[in-house]
Amino acid sequence: MTRISRIELTPVAFADPPLLNVVGVHEPFALRTIVQVHTDDGLVGLGETYAADDHLARLAAVAEVLPGLDVFDLNGLRRRVHDALASGGATQVGGMLNLQDPVDVVMSPYEVALLDLQGKQLDRPVVDLLGGAVRDEVPFSAYLFYKWAAHPGGEPGAWGAALDPDGIVRQARTMIDQYGFTAIKLKGGVFEPAQEVEVVRALAAAFPEHKLRIDPNCAWTVETSVRVARELEGVIEYLEDPTPGIEGMAEVARYTKIPLATNMCVIAFAQLKPAVLADAVQVVLSDHHYWGGLRRSQLLGGICDTFGMGLSMHSNSHLGISLAAMTHLAAATPNLTYACDTHYPWKTEDVIKPGVLPFERGSVRVPRGPGLGVELDEDALGKLHEQYLAGGIRKRDDTGYMRTVDPEFTPNTARW
Amino acid sequence: MTRISRIELTPVAFADPPLLNVVGVHEPFALRTIVQVHTDDGLVGLGETYAADDHLARLAAVAEVLPGLDVFDLNGLRRRVHDALASGGATQVGGMLNLQDPVDVVMSPYEVALLDLQGKQLDRPVVDLLGGAVRDEVPFSAYLFYKWAAHPGGEPGAWGAALDPDGIVRQARTMIDQYGFTAIKLKGGVFEPAQEVEVVRALAAAFPEHKLRIDPNCAWTVETSVRVARELEGVIEYLEDPTPGIEGMAEVARYTKIPLATNMCVIAFAQLKPAVLADAVQVVLSDHHYWGGLRRSQLLGGICDTFGMGLSMHSNSHLGISLAAMTHLAAATPNLTYACDTHYPWKTEDVIKPGVLPFERGSVRVPRGPGLGVELDEDALGKLHEQYLAGGIRKRDDTGYMRTVDPEFTPNTARW
Repeated sequence: MTRISRIELTPVAFADPPLLNVVGVHEPFALRTIVQVHTDDGLVGLGETYAADDHLARLAAVAEVLPGLDVFDLNGLRRRVHDALASGGATQVGGMLNLQDPVDVVMSPYEVALLDLQGKQLDRPVVDLLGGAVRDEVPFSAYLFYKWAAHPGGEPGAWGAALDPDGIVRQARTMIDQYGFTAIKLKGGVFEPAQEVEVVRALAAAFPEHKLRIDPNCAWTVETSVRVARELEGVIEYLEDPTPGIEGMAEVARYTKIPLATNMCVIAFAQLKPAVLADAVQVVLSDHHYWGGLRRSQLLGGICDTFGMGLSMHSNSHLGISLAAMTHLAAATPNLTYACDTHYPWKTEDVIKPGVLPFERGSVRVPRGPGLGVELDEDALGKLHEQYLAGGIRKRDDTGYMRTVDPEFTPNTARW
Repeated sequence: MTRISRIELTPVAFADPPLLNVVGVHEPFALRTIVQVHTDDGLVGLGETYAADDHLARLAAVAEVLPGLDVFDLNGLRRRVHDALASGGATQVGGMLNLQDPVDVVMSPYEVALLDLQGKQLDRPVVDLLGGAVRDEVPFSAYLFYKWAAHPGGEPGAWGAALDPDGIVRQARTMIDQYGFTAIKLKGGVFEPAQEVEVVRALAAAFPEHKLRIDPNCAWTVETSVRVARELEGVIEYLEDPTPGIEGMAEVARYTKIPLATNMCVIAFAQLKPAVLADAVQVVLSDHHYWGGLRRSQLLGGICDTFGMGLSMHSNSHLGISLAAMTHLAAATPNLTYACDTHYPWKTEDVIKPGVLPFERGSVRVPRGPGLGVELDEDALGKLHEQYLAGGIRKRDDTGYMRTVDPEFTPNTARW
């Protein structure tokens, strides 16, 4: 039996471009916590999660109670996390996520690290522990953002500005040329709906063979959502979170044939029953970082299959450990039939040794090495940790950052 | 990578007492199929399932397409079973089960055998592969039956007759003295409801500390079910399948506080959504033999947890391989909070070497050996296979057997 001996938690910051969304704009650095789980026989398992200060404190509290746990005891992990967080409320990781189930959020990187350890012990990739690969390559989508050319006071980055149809189409072209994506997601909720619809139409014209999605992050009223949905019928494969709440989504769903997707009104197991009873969403965007890890995300997948909902995958800004975990999970999930979202093209730094997760034809090949199949680059980890210490950001705050430019900015949902 | 090299399917028959139920009476022999999955590195994994002739033919069809499969590839197993059964309808295993999802029914013993192989390869018990034990001992219930003293023309067995309150209480006393059970299930639907209520009351008086359940297998109308439920409020922990169908159960549920349990109207994943929408059942009786194996049964458990339904476990007449699988599954399932059903005390023969699955205080300790932790007794297997060949029963037929005694017997559901 292999047992946990100790845990290392390393918060890191990595450069992030000024990507716009409904609550503001991405700061110059995004945060993650790298989790290393050491065992008594000298193995190390890897996980990656948010790094907001509250969350980091919870990860640390749990780290204290994990030594001694058998690496196969995922039920024991959940129990220890539950007990260590007995007093916990929602997890505020910054940005738009207000995660209601801290047990699932906190256990996730540890569960991934334990699966990494199991795989390393068995000399098997994690996908095998999840039931085996149903696909060898996992398709991802081109995740387009309205963006500024540069951070305020900063140098322009490689991508340039994208604030109108031409800018977005140019961004899509660059990203697709480089990665080969066959699906496109536009982060909306930034400009008024008519302008965003125009961008979607421009994308459809420029990329007639690509699947399209738009995600305004609940920026619209029910009425606007219904109107936009009708305009985009036959153009997009799903409409993501047009309006807030299960009731609002259910109301929109009654008036459109476009499947409604969510990573905002259904982000915990407790929200599934109300959503099913209201017939509010047709596609759930899973995300192992808050659905309790890979095995619990498989449960979510099975629930979607059983209750007639589609399954896609959400992403926040992330690094290579997360990409590897997402790829193993997606490869083992038969009903994950949509291309997964990823912010991966937007980052320029990482904590893993390069070369194992190349994108080809828009897809990532499942790593065949043991466990997650990725290896930590200690020098890179140290550098990004220094960046975290020096940068001073301790919790994502897109709204506060936007207000340094536009003091009147209000991140209201359902504003249009 | 360890791959399947060949499959052995061995139908067996084992002696069974004349236990009464709504469709008739158990025949002198019950049937099972013992599945042995051999690998290219010389391991053998075990599974156990029904042996009705149709089912056996499907098992054999699938056995032909499994060689070459990696023992970790459970998704690949499901795909191969699905493809091999492309033309299949419902599975008629005899008795009351009319299983609607042949893929789940046929894959189950193979999935169990693959998990047994994985455990043997890793030198870990199956419970570890299912997420780790949340309990070291799994409680089972005393499964009481109305019964005759002997099969027609046969010698009286050890248990004697039980056709009235005294007989059932005596049977309970014997079984509890021997096994230590702390929960009691009465198979009803045999006599008119007033008489069965009287038996439940007699059991409650004789065993005031024991949890009680009754299962009339849909013998009652909605009206009768509501009346009986009200009479037994505060006496039983749940009422199992009082009346047929999701709609009928939902109607009963509206008029009683007793949780309604089922292994008749929800026996496949496709029935879960209608049951949830109708709020028809409060406890699902899982059974890995038709819910697609242990991992799919865990999905069922997660669904029950997510949608606010309780979880218990159903049993047909079975042998030790199934008992081991049930025990590993139950040990790894946190929300399986009811004592599981088992027919184990009713059998006098087995195919495994004895001693690893003793009942203590009504519970079975999770075997700690690798895989399922049970070993096939080749001599016993050969003897029970001879019994199958000589006995001539090829499909369970409680009704036909009852008609040899009572030609007018009709197995109507909702008869009272």
